[in-house]
Amino acid sequence: MIVSVGSASDVKRVTQALAAHGQWVARVEATATEQLLVLAPYGAAVDAARLREIPGVRAVSTPASTRPLLDGAGSTVAVGDIVIGGERRTLIAGPCAVESEARIHALASTLARHGVSVLRGGAHKPRTSPYAFRGHGDVALGWLRDAADAAGMKVVTEVLSEGDVDAVAARADLLQVGSRNMAAFALLRAVGRAGLPVLLKRGAAATIDEWLLAAEHLLAAGARGVVLCERGVRGFDHETRNLLDLSAVALLANVHRLPVIVDPSHATGRRDLVVPLARAALACGAAGVMVEVHDQPELALSDGPQALAPDDVAAIGGRS
Amino acid sequence: MIVSVGSASDVKRVTQALAAHGQWVARVEATATEQLLVLAPYGAAVDAARLREIPGVRAVSTPASTRPLLDGAGSTVAVGDIVIGGERRTLIAGPCAVESEARIHALASTLARHGVSVLRGGAHKPRTSPYAFRGHGDVALGWLRDAADAAGMKVVTEVLSEGDVDAVAARADLLQVGSRNMAAFALLRAVGRAGLPVLLKRGAAATIDEWLLAAEHLLAAGARGVVLCERGVRGFDHETRNLLDLSAVALLANVHRLPVIVDPSHATGRRDLVVPLARAALACGAAGVMVEVHDQPELALSDGPQALAPDDVAAIGGRS
Amino acid sequence: MIVSVGSASDVKRVTQALAAHGQWVARVEATATEQLLVLAPYGAAVDAARLREIPGVRAVSTPASTRPLLDGAGSTVAVGDIVIGGERRTLIAGPCAVESEARIHALASTLARHGVSVLRGGAHKPRTSPYAFRGHGDVALGWLRDAADAAGMKVVTEVLSEGDVDAVAARADLLQVGSRNMAAFALLRAVGRAGLPVLLKRGAAATIDEWLLAAEHLLAAGARGVVLCERGVRGFDHETRNLLDLSAVALLANVHRLPVIVDPSHATGRRDLVVPLARAALACGAAGVMVEVHDQPELALSDGPQALAPDDVAAIGGRS
Amino acid sequence: MIVSVGSASDVKRVTQALAAHGQWVARVEATATEQLLVLAPYGAAVDAARLREIPGVRAVSTPASTRPLLDGAGSTVAVGDIVIGGERRTLIAGPCAVESEARIHALASTLARHGVSVLRGGAHKPRTSPYAFRGHGDVALGWLRDAADAAGMKVVTEVLSEGDVDAVAARADLLQVGSRNMAAFALLRAVGRAGLPVLLKRGAAATIDEWLLAAEHLLAAGARGVVLCERGVRGFDHETRNLLDLSAVALLANVHRLPVIVDPSHATGRRDLVVPLARAALACGAAGVMVEVHDQPELALSDGPQALAPDDVAAIGGRS
Repeated sequence: MIVSVGSASDVKRVTQALAAHGQWVARVEATATEQLLVLAPYGAAVDAARLREIPGVRAVSTPASTRPLLDGAGSTVAVGDIVIGGERRTLIAGPCAVESEARIHALASTLARHGVSVLRGGAHKPRTSPYAFRGHGDVALGWLRDAADAAGMKVVTEVLSEGDVDAVAARADLLQVGSRNMAAFALLRAVGRAGLPVLLKRGAAATIDEWLLAAEHLLAAGARGVVLCERGVRGFDHETRNLLDLSAVALLANVHRLPVIVDPSHATGRRDLVVPLARAALACGAAGVMVEVHDQPELALSDGPQALAPDDVAAIGGRS
Repeated sequence: MIVSVGSASDVKRVTQALAAHGQWVARVEATATEQLLVLAPYGAAVDAARLREIPGVRAVSTPASTRPLLDGAGSTVAVGDIVIGGERRTLIAGPCAVESEARIHALASTLARHGVSVLRGGAHKPRTSPYAFRGHGDVALGWLRDAADAAGMKVVTEVLSEGDVDAVAARADLLQVGSRNMAAFALLRAVGRAGLPVLLKRGAAATIDEWLLAAEHLLAAGARGVVLCERGVRGFDHETRNLLDLSAVALLANVHRLPVIVDPSHATGRRDLVVPLARAALACGAAGVMVEVHDQPELALSDGPQALAPDDVAAIGGRS
Repeated sequence: MIVSVGSASDVKRVTQALAAHGQWVARVEATATEQLLVLAPYGAAVDAARLREIPGVRAVSTPASTRPLLDGAGSTVAVGDIVIGGERRTLIAGPCAVESEARIHALASTLARHGVSVLRGGAHKPRTSPYAFRGHGDVALGWLRDAADAAGMKVVTEVLSEGDVDAVAARADLLQVGSRNMAAFALLRAVGRAGLPVLLKRGAAATIDEWLLAAEHLLAAGARGVVLCERGVRGFDHETRNLLDLSAVALLANVHRLPVIVDPSHATGRRDLVVPLARAALACGAAGVMVEVHDQPELALSDGPQALAPDDVAAIGGRS
Repeated sequence: MIVSVGSASDVKRVTQALAAHGQWVARVEATATEQLLVLAPYGAAVDAARLREIPGVRAVSTPASTRPLLDGAGSTVAVGDIVIGGERRTLIAGPCAVESEARIHALASTLARHGVSVLRGGAHKPRTSPYAFRGHGDVALGWLRDAADAAGMKVVTEVLSEGDVDAVAARADLLQVGSRNMAAFALLRAVGRAGLPVLLKRGAAATIDEWLLAAEHLLAAGARGVVLCERGVRGFDHETRNLLDLSAVALLANVHRLPVIVDPSHATGRRDLVVPLARAALACGAAGVMVEVHDQPELALSDGPQALAPDDVAAIGGRS
């Protein structure tokens, strides 16, 4: 927002009054006839009408929305007969990769008992190296669906390729777009056209604005709701794998009122930090958490070091 | 850590066994006679002896500590007759700048009733612009001390200059080194020599290792304990002012077992996110939070937009 | 690399000798029988055999390559009958979007006279907003091909979708994978299967290792050579749009000996910095530069503020 | 800058006209009576009067300067009888630490023959670990001064402590403020009061604006000119030690017209990249380069892996 002040002598007083509304003046620019106080993007949420009442203020401008569909989408997303967002806290859990039919069935049954309502699991896996295990593909989608049905859960799984959308949409309740693909717009359009709700992970260096515009891409293509998922951004310190951005989560949850899930497993890469950060995510307003769980981490085909044991999920304690 | 394996054929199996201990193999290097599995820094905390028991492992190396004093410092710091760290949760609060004697007395009294045990307040202020208000200096130190005494609180305030150490140490219980000065080693030595406990804010782009080495500088110079303070690192998205690194807090609190305070006021710059992030900090293991409070934010001489009202402190709810 | 030293008393002397080879010791780890000196990744390129000759060194380990195809790919890539890399300096230029048949013909003719050998131009455009101009699509591909042929140039253009690969491959000599899609592995595989050389832009927060692994994905799928393209990484200061990483360019060009092109237009977003940074790129070893050019920037349908005028290309002066 | 347009129907046309001046519209904000086009900070340098001539534009605002002293300081700084900035290219070189009287004399003599006009060398060294070598202190200052005098060079060396200002100012021609101390304002004031020119290194995560405000602090305290020095910012990829920000250098040199020196030694940490990046720095407008040189890197007490041999300096080739 930009606050227009007629007289230079009023700038200091208006700046103080703006502080009372949680607003920072990032800079002052002058034309021949007015002083424009440009407000910092990190000020508190405020109604422009309140600022117009400050004595000395001539006008307050508000930016046009670039995300009309998301603005109208509300704070909850229906995934089958469950709802993510609002006051609820949703637990999403499951293995990095779906490894066998028996294992996913057993795991789903255990997780359901711990309050997990959405089963996650990789069938098509993105891998940094072309030589790493890429998942069991479509057959694993079937195992995942059956395991979730048997346990009364919903399914979320990632769509990696435009060519996979139909096969994944036939089995999943919630389509995941991964962090690496957040701005792969052709994939976003293909996923959106399936007409299902989508879980959209944040790109490793995506601004909040770019992330929300990617959600707008999905909605514009036909997605029936978008759940955001923060999984850590790229940081400069590799002692923690990624930098979990709970500031962004707090902003989206408390100010934008959007449903945002936090994935502490990929953010930290280490199971001993997953539960503390899952709790922190729920404490600052996240609509839920998504964690990797494996019944035998030492046999995991991928991402074993970050997998929780099934019973650890109970320690998160966020169910509502 | 580095895990030595004799035979290349054992590498895959040992890698899987390491996953069960929460360890990632960052890369494998070979000499003529052994395979060295270099573990990623972001693996779980683990005892090397446990890894040596894995079949096929010949040796496990452990890095020499570069921080012997901090290693021996324990997980609590005494500040006068109160203790920060361990299972306690400490609330630190006060104004950005100490503006008048009457105002700081009134505020301290209110904050004490809300469970705040340490009063913060700026007497010497670092300012990005040379033309901004720099605080009332030594006279404000006296007001701060008296107000804290009257309310039964301890005092923390920043030391900006080597020349101010004695004056500040005469009034404060806990000396603060600010984020901009985290690696100003001459100042660290001067502050350490005062023989008081120190609150050490993390530099905006400091790695955890650099931060802990700065603490070691303080201890080597004579500081009686160091409380760490995370206040947000520099991020790429300016919609939130800084990027609050609760991953680092969870690591320091749960793995290193060090006392770490979180400052959500400077991290976010906006009061509507301070309480959610303060709660998140406590949920992931922080020893306490430090927040800016002002009785009349519209009259604040600095940082008004991020200041809470005194009653908001009660909403944090972390006292123990 | 890791240098094994038998006796703790030799560590200091070996550390000094390593410095003479441009090597930093990042940390020292001890097993019961040896001291392991872990070298920092940012040391100079060095032959392990040279380090083994240092008195006191017992063994030197070298990491296994994770990119066998790229390792064998050499330092040049043939694009039709021209070659990128080695001692040559290639100029790639053209408009952000191909806007009309007449305009691209006129521009190609001018650029060819200024030493530009590869014509770039967007037919399918990635856009952060779903409501922005996305290019004229396949018809623009035909205009681009014809204009290049008439001017004796090669064509590079971006592939946005797996479904577009065949159409683009039928018209272009060099397939571009954009920054947002660097880790969209399904797209990488589809592009690689076309069997053409690929220009691979670096992701905004991709490490050098991730970037090279994406090149390996392309080669594994069948790409006939990969030209890397640095276009700026995400930085914390928005006064320049992206942070052009010429350190990475110098590393890839001088140490890895890979062909790397620099795109200063997208890096800076402003035409007054394009020529200085294009010159810097060539000075530190880039195989060429790629710049956006428009004959009438005020009429550009996209990215006008960063477009050079055609005659500015001559000022870069890198042709060889 | 902010461009005010009266009618919403003019916004698109004015946006296009702004593109012709190298300007991006970051966002559009509306009041009841006007449309405010907020220009992105990374647009080209432009005179506001030119933008006011665009049909449909009602007013153009310009930000008030926050750095009046720096604005008036010009593009050159006198260091004794030499001048840094303008069209000249200055070579600054010397060892990380001044290790002995004989060695610095011999080195200075060699460097002078290679066109180096300013001798650098550490007497008081900042070190991340409290247990590392901190330099020989004041005695080394004397050696450095004498060696420079004998070779007809100027001296630059770092001031680490407020208490050292007088001793350093008595010996040096140019006082260096290191990267870690860029925002240590008490030190800046003490250094500025010495009335000498200052070489101000950029903080590892300092924005350009913060860096220039630190220069303003120095000038406000009495510094006789500030030479800026870019030495790499903190990046996410540790394969190069720091991320040399030549975009910022190009901006400061070509748009702000300020003298900026580049230090590729600390930026890269490896001698095999120092010369390529030194050349790149000069190619994009740097006023000079500062490199570390040691006659016997294997005997260097600090930073040996990044030191050039004296003869390598000639390969930079920037003298003018």
